[in-house]
Amino acid sequence: MEIKVLTNILKANEAIAEENRQLFSENRLLVINMISSPGSGKTSILEKTIELLTSDIRLGIIEGDVQTSKDAERINALGVPVVQINTQGGCHLDANMIKMTLPDLPLGEVDCLIIENVGNLVCPANYQLGEDMKVVVLSVTEGDDKPIKYPTIFRESQIMIINKIDLLTFTNFDMATAKEYALQINPELKIFEVSCQNGQGFDKWINWLASKIKNSSAL
Amino acid sequence: MEIKVLTNILKANEAIAEENRQLFSENRLLVINMISSPGSGKTSILEKTIELLTSDIRLGIIEGDVQTSKDAERINALGVPVVQINTQGGCHLDANMIKMTLPDLPLGEVDCLIIENVGNLVCPANYQLGEDMKVVVLSVTEGDDKPIKYPTIFRESQIMIINKIDLLTFTNFDMATAKEYALQINPELKIFEVSCQNGQGFDKWINWLASKIKNSSAL
Repeated sequence: MEIKVLTNILKANEAIAEENRQLFSENRLLVINMISSPGSGKTSILEKTIELLTSDIRLGIIEGDVQTSKDAERINALGVPVVQINTQGGCHLDANMIKMTLPDLPLGEVDCLIIENVGNLVCPANYQLGEDMKVVVLSVTEGDDKPIKYPTIFRESQIMIINKIDLLTFTNFDMATAKEYALQINPELKIFEVSCQNGQGFDKWINWLASKIKNSSAL
Repeated sequence: MEIKVLTNILKANEAIAEENRQLFSENRLLVINMISSPGSGKTSILEKTIELLTSDIRLGIIEGDVQTSKDAERINALGVPVVQINTQGGCHLDANMIKMTLPDLPLGEVDCLIIENVGNLVCPANYQLGEDMKVVVLSVTEGDDKPIKYPTIFRESQIMIINKIDLLTFTNFDMATAKEYALQINPELKIFEVSCQNGQGFDKWINWLASKIKNSSAL
């Protein structure tokens, strides 16, 4: 009974995600759904990405949070178009929430839309938003065992960003173990290691992202 | 429609939670539901708590995870009765999962049962398990804004443990801000600051917990 309800909700969600996907495709937008635990550094990665991407690439951001517009305020301060979704207790974004916010974004003037999901390593993995790819963020302070403990999101993602590598020496996080677990779940996963504190590793992520955006967009 | 389904699920859950609560009460057990993001250090706090509590206090542990029995193996290595629940994708423990595992725990020989919930700062807050109190764990590497961004769990908890304080100087976490936000949501919240790496702050937590257990149990 409970599973049936869940299936129906997911099917209804998938239909709207498909509408979003078509709209994104018409606008030649690369769309990224960024997912992690609370506090893994999604907003900090966005801030750094906005700072480092060349100015000919135009970003748009959707911020998902249970409460507050703090993240949208951080992005807005950088002059990037941003919309905040507050789920009011909801544990994930769904396709309809995205659909409702799209009229507030200048889609025709954007090359890449990044959606920062609610901080949650479990539920957002099951809800398609119409994105081209999911990016999962894991910070080293969370421990190297997370890929096998929360496998769905690592299976669903194309990219894993390992954040806070400046804190590596202060933790018992083993980089080789984390990667091994993640690749065991998803052998196709592309992995970037970064630090928002000192900028380490961002060159590779930015180069890869810029080339991906240029392939999808009218640039 | 969706809200109605949720209400029914929560009502059904509450009825089983009440059964659990009566069983716990008959056994004079203090029951704690421990909730945090993935990787905040719940299992490490349990390990340290087991190590430091005097041996006249008998603990039992239920480990909740999406996948793997890694956490239960860590607790089992310390000689404490433990049962692992795998939710197989589910984002929280519910009262029925707890009910089903109770026959596997020697309730009559335990003074305090600690339930480590699935790593998730959102969904577990809505599901009563029959516990006496919720303990929310926030690690300093997650950022000081989490209490206002994920308010429900901070409102529902009696205790907040701020973990990884050994990493304070390497982060931009502001302890005063974190506490202010948490107390704004829940003025009754009791706060402990600890480090599992160097043991700092555990004396206060252990003294408080031991006295709480002695009040509830037959000790």
